[in-house]
Parts: sequence; C-alpha cells; structure tokens
Amino acid sequence: MDKIKPRTLSGFMELLPAPQMQMEQFLDVLRRTYSLYGFTPLDTPAVESAEILLAKAGGETEKQIYRFSKGDSDLCLRFDLTVPLAKYVALHAAELSFPFRRFQIGKVYRGERAQRGRFREFYQADIDIIGDGKLDIANEAEIPAVIYTTFTELGLRRFRIRVNNRKILNGFYAMLGLSERAADIMRTVDKLEKLGAQKVLALLTDDLGLSAQAGEEILKFISIAGDNASVLAALEQYRGKNEVFDTGLDELGTVVKYLGAFGVPEEFFAVDLTIARGLDYYTGTVYETTMLDHPELGSICSGGRYDNLAGYYTDRVLPGVGISIGVTRLFYVLQEQGMLNPSLSTAPADVLVLPMTEDLSAAAAAATYLRQQALRTQLYCEQKKFKAKMQYADRLGIPYVVFLGEDEIAAGKVSVKDLSSGEQQLLPLPQAAAFIQAGLAARGGGSLIQE
Amino acid sequence: MDKIKPRTLSGFMELLPAPQMQMEQFLDVLRRTYSLYGFTPLDTPAVESAEILLAKAGGETEKQIYRFSKGDSDLCLRFDLTVPLAKYVALHAAELSFPFRRFQIGKVYRGERAQRGRFREFYQADIDIIGDGKLDIANEAEIPAVIYTTFTELGLRRFRIRVNNRKILNGFYAMLGLSERAADIMRTVDKLEKLGAQKVLALLTDDLGLSAQAGEEILKFISIAGDNASVLAALEQYRGKNEVFDTGLDELGTVVKYLGAFGVPEEFFAVDLTIARGLDYYTGTVYETTMLDHPELGSICSGGRYDNLAGYYTDRVLPGVGISIGVTRLFYVLQEQGMLNPSLSTAPADVLVLPMTEDLSAAAAAATYLRQQALRTQLYCEQKKFKAKMQYADRLGIPYVVFLGEDEIAAGKVSVKDLSSGEQQLLPLPQAAAFIQAGLAARGGGSLIQE
Repeated sequence: MDKIKPRTLSGFMELLPAPQMQMEQFLDVLRRTYSLYGFTPLDTPAVESAEILLAKAGGETEKQIYRFSKGDSDLCLRFDLTVPLAKYVALHAAELSFPFRRFQIGKVYRGERAQRGRFREFYQADIDIIGDGKLDIANEAEIPAVIYTTFTELGLRRFRIRVNNRKILNGFYAMLGLSERAADIMRTVDKLEKLGAQKVLALLTDDLGLSAQAGEEILKFISIAGDNASVLAALEQYRGKNEVFDTGLDELGTVVKYLGAFGVPEEFFAVDLTIARGLDYYTGTVYETTMLDHPELGSICSGGRYDNLAGYYTDRVLPGVGISIGVTRLFYVLQEQGMLNPSLSTAPADVLVLPMTEDLSAAAAAATYLRQQALRTQLYCEQKKFKAKMQYADRLGIPYVVFLGEDEIAAGKVSVKDLSSGEQQLLPLPQAAAFIQAGLAARGGGSLIQE
Repeated sequence: MDKIKPRTLSGFMELLPAPQMQMEQFLDVLRRTYSLYGFTPLDTPAVESAEILLAKAGGETEKQIYRFSKGDSDLCLRFDLTVPLAKYVALHAAELSFPFRRFQIGKVYRGERAQRGRFREFYQADIDIIGDGKLDIANEAEIPAVIYTTFTELGLRRFRIRVNNRKILNGFYAMLGLSERAADIMRTVDKLEKLGAQKVLALLTDDLGLSAQAGEEILKFISIAGDNASVLAALEQYRGKNEVFDTGLDELGTVVKYLGAFGVPEEFFAVDLTIARGLDYYTGTVYETTMLDHPELGSICSGGRYDNLAGYYTDRVLPGVGISIGVTRLFYVLQEQGMLNPSLSTAPADVLVLPMTEDLSAAAAAATYLRQQALRTQLYCEQKKFKAKMQYADRLGIPYVVFLGEDEIAAGKVSVKDLSSGEQQLLPLPQAAAFIQAGLAARGGGSLIQE
C-alpha cells in the first residue's frame, strides 16, 4: 500500500512528550492562579456561526479567519476568546451573577502567513471581569496583581507591568485640540524608543503637519517617566484643563494607590504614557507586560478596561476589564531562549516497576499498591533484556525503579533504586513507597521558568 | 445599531459557570487517573491536512467531517484522537520511547444530524499504549484497571467492564466454516438481548441462510455466561480446533488472571462473548463499559487491541491497545439523569471579601493575604447595598464571607462568616484564614457522581 507521508501543518504547534509536560505545567500554573483570584473557568465552542464572530471583525482579522460551510451553516473558527465571551455574556446574562469573573484557556485560530514563532493555532489564556452597567475602578487595580502572581508563579523574576490610562491620552490630545489626529500621533510616538526624540519630533511636524509647539508639548508629555509618585506628580500639572484627563488621572492614581495592598512590589510596575493598545476598544486603564531582558518580544500579557463588551449583541451595557496571555508564542519563545528549567521533571511516571519473572502477578500487585499511594507508576510488561528496560526508564527520566525477581518475591520485599544516586535497597513495599515519596519531596518541584 | 441575536450553534455544548465547574472536575479526575497509570499527556492540532485525516476515513465518518480550504490547503477538523495519534507516532517514532503510553483529552468534531444528546463538538479522553513491533498481552490486562479506577474516582459504583477477544470470535466462526459470514452473523447476534434467542435463531437461518445446526451452535456459544472461571471453563471445550481461537482463549485467560493483581474486583468485570466492537480495526481484547442501571446508554468507555496503528503512514508495525471515553455525551447524560453530586461545591471562590469602607486598602490587603494562604478569594469592589453583596455570595455558593468595616480595621481584625451555619466571628486575619481552611477541609470534596 502506498504510504501517506505523515506531517503536521505548518504554524500548528505539536510537542514531543517532554516539552508537552512543560506546557502542561505552564497551563496548570495559569489555571491555578486564575482560580486563586476567584475567576470561574469557562469553555465555549471553537466553532461559531460566522454572523456572530464577524459582527465586530474586519480588516486584517477577517482575512485571517478560517471560515467554512457545513450544510446551510456559515461557520468560523474563533480567532480570539473575547468575541465568544461577548456572545456568552449577552446570551446568558440573565443567568449570570455580576461582576462576572471568568477565565478561559483555549485554542484560537488565525490563518496568518506562516513564519518562525507565529502560530495559526494557539492557546490564549484570558481573564475578564464584567460588570452589569457599572464596574468599579478597583477592579482595574486588581489586574496587575493577577499578572504579577501569574508570572511569579511561573518563575519569571525580571518583568514589568506597564500601565497607562486611555482617558489621560484622550484628554491630553483634546487639550491640544488634536483629538482627531490622536491615532496618527500615537502611532508616531510609539517609535520613540526606536528613533529617539528628535526624529519623532521631525515626523510629528513634517509628516503630520503639527506645529513645532504642539510637537514639543507631545514629546514633553510622553517623556514623563520615573517612579510612580513622580509620574503622577508630573501629570498633576495638567490637571484642570480637561475633564476626561482629570478622570483618567484619578483612575491612574487609584490603581497606583492600591498596588501595595494587592501585593504588587513597586519595581514590577511602571506608569508608561506611551502605551495605547489600539484605538477603539479600550477606554480606561491599559496594561502591557514586558520581560526586562527581552524587550524585543514585546508585550507578553496585555489588556485593559473597556466600556461595552457586547454592544453588537445586546442593549445591556457591559463594561469590563481583562487581560490575555498568548501562551503558545510565549512558550515557544521561552523554549528558544533556553529559559525553561531543565531540572524540572518531565517524566510520565515517578516509578517504573520491572518484573524479573515470567509471571507478572507480583509486579502488577506492586504497581497497584504504588498507585494507591498516589505514585505515578508504569509497569514494564515487555520481554526485553535488562539493559533495554533500564534504558527505557533512563530515556523517560523516570526517577525510581522497583525490581521484583524470585528472591524479592520470596522475601516479600522489593528492590527499589534511585536512578540519580544509584542507591538501591531491599525493602517491604510500603517502605519502598515511602522511600520514593520522600525522595520526590526532597527533589521539590521548582518553577517552570528559570531566569 | 441593529443587534445580532447572540446564539451558540446547535450540537455545541456551552455550559453555565456551575455545570462548567463540574465538567472541570470531571476532566481533572481523568487527567489525574491517566497520569497515575504513567500515561504522558499529549496535545495535537484540532486541524490537520485532509490527506492525513482522510487516509483511513470513509463512509459515514467522511460525510460528517468538517472540511475546508484556506489558501491552497485542504483542511479538516479532527473527528477522533486516534488518527492524529497514528500520524504523531509515525512522524515522531524516532524520538519516542516504546511502549509509548499517552493520554489525550481534546475536542473532536463530527457534523452529525443534530439531535438531543448528540454533539458535533465533543471531548474525547483517550489512552493508548503503543508498542514498537510487539506489545505484550499484559498491557491488555492493565486496561480494565485504568477503566475501573477512572470511574471509581468519578464516584460511579454500579458499572461493569465487559471484555471479549476478537481472536476467540474469529476462531469460532472459522471452526464453523463461516469466517466470511462473520460480519453479518455478529450484527444479528448483537440483537440477542433485545429479540431473544428464538428470534435470533430464526434470523440466522431464514435471513442469513445458515443451517439449523450452525444456528444452534452460534446461539449456544454466545449464550456462555457466568463468572469468569465458568466462562473460561466453558470455552475450554472448544480448544484444539482452531489456532486463532486457542490464542484468543490464552489471551483472555491472561487478562482474567491478572485482574486481581491490577486491583479490579471481579464483580466489576465480565467476559461477554457478544461484544465485537467493529470488524476490522480491533484484533485482540475488546472492551465495553456499561452502567448497570442505565444499559440504554450503551458503552461509556470502549476500546481494544489493534495490530497496526499507523499502516497508512509508515511501514513500522505499531501494535497497541487503547480506550476512549466520550466525555461530553457522558457528562450530558449524567446531568440529565440527575447523577451529578449536588453537594459538591461549584463556587468560583472559597471566600468573598466585603469592604464596608470607601477606601479598599485594608480589604485588598486581606484578599491578598487570603490568596497567599491558597484560599480562592474574590474581593467585592462594587458600591452596592449590603443585601446585594450578600446575595452575590449566596448565588455563587461562596461558603465564607470576610467583612472589613471601620471597627474591624481599628481592631486589627476581620469578621468572618460561615454562610451555611450562619456562624460569625471577629478574628485576626490569620485565625480567620485558619477557620476557613478548617471549614473547607471538614466539608470535604466528595466525588462528582452520586449514585
């Protein structure tokens, strides 16, 4: 029979068992941390009707969508978790309690041009807090704590949560009478780090046709930096000129004020006036998170406050705040940078039971006992040479082997070997299990990322 | 703006938060149990090239497939987890260790006609053990232990794992010279429970044209029942007439022999000669699992031994054994039957912190502390009446509330209330956390299913 060459589509991540174990640990930390903050898990279909998913899309997103029909149905694979959330809340609002705090970790699909580190199927891990009509600013202050705890639990140490408020930006540009040019200006200003102040000033005046004075004002404003207190103090100078600005500044002050109470050390947080995060959707606090030693990666966790989640589906006003982590890309980058902790076990089992007799009854009973002690256990059933059996344990990184030969069975004991130290003992099974458990506990877990 | 009516596609399960929590617990039990048996988690793309996925499909399956193109690519959504596993093992064989034990829990897609309890997107939860060239029969004996532990951990008590061996069936029909009629005969014989022996006999002779003697022989054979020892003894009478039969009987004997050592009580297991599980794929032991009080649901966990997993993709011979649980349908049925334990908490948090002051600093700090003690904590930030805040906790089933008013803050304490008992105490925060932890531990988890 002619064979079909096995292959996996380009842009679709498929991991070998050891890295898959690391990915599982990544996802576990996210689930655990999001749950700790009282978010409820949600799962929505990966396929939705095109009418629903495309209500809001357009431009680049729409081109990337996987769209297809089945029977009379016009269908799409979801391209993010936000539109399905909007549909979910609009559809089930009567049955939900608000503020509705949910997390969702799931695959989304974008048919982008394939390139290294870009994925067409990837996990997003989102949290959102949705209010019914209103949502207190304190929720925006809590989000940096979730980001801080998530990355700290993953083992990251050198990162910074950068925060801005869209009302401050909108208010500032309104002060200059430049509200309608704000989009162009922000795109230009975004190049500050790359091009430097003089070139950005030139672009603002020459390309966008702003006055030299306006250009200077903008540069002065976005150059405001320093610790939180000094940035807030510098922004106070603009107070009283624009209502939206003043509200934004109050909100930013509140977010900064509660940081400590929410457990975020100041050095992990910075007000950054250059952050805008798109132009229509976000209306208040916006977040980006960057790795201090890898600024080239851009933001690894972004989001913000929006005033109306589901305006396409319902008249109900649903303001919210949320963040999203692009898990697949971040995992890929951590792998590429060699930042995944190599001493963290990726073994599929804690112990391998090796029968040395033809009859497997004693070995099977030993495996059953070890499993009852919550030890992840494999029973090796194949008729192979001893060396091949040991190689199997070694290749998978299984830390303990339990042997059962005639002698052990006659003595009512097992031989248990710690493969890292080479230490081997003849012990009754319960003591062998305790020996393994103590060894595993001593090894400890360690975090996924090693920085 | 015209609104688009929010809806979820029919045949796509989308759960409210409380049942979603139950589903998460279901999936957690599966992940934990599969891991306990030393299976490694795997995750493959939901989208594959059509050429790969359709290598083996045909007939009904092919009609149900979601197939679409993007650019030049002819793509499909996976319709099971077996074909992607075959591709994975064929593609990565050089980097895997054999026997390769993997589990995968993921969504699969079948565009079936929508009907109650049938899903177009559903979770399958599979385990497989793949050998390289050979795979010992002992692996087939271990599978019932995984099934037993999985359902027991879920809380199911009244179920039976029914086992047969395809070699016994094939050998038996060969003895009668009816190998080529075996498919038709097995389909007829499958109706035994429904129609009774006389009607089945009539079908065998009248419709299939078998001799009365052959019909009687078949009925006598498939009526063999009783405890494992008596069934095996009855089958011994056929030994020596056909080599395939004898091998099958030896294999079945081995599977039965190791049951006890693998921890499966005999009453949860039955040899059942009517089970065949399709006609081409399985070659040895086959498994079905039925709920004793709900035989109408059919098998809730099925699988078997196959001799060649990936013949479409590789010359490498990859025998294996595996089982699959159709999670979404089973969950749906358990829900419909009222079998999900109502006393199991579905709350998104263990404790709700209610600030009674305008400044939230103390409340935020209390929430941070409770989270550091691994308590899932929500901070209620909205400006609402006290009654509305308490209703929120009540509706979500959050068991504890921590109040922080002026008096508590001044005293350096919090008021902690157990909402089920109504008991309220004024305690320093660490003692309040300990009080909540003790209460949660006393409540206990309980299992998902209550039978």
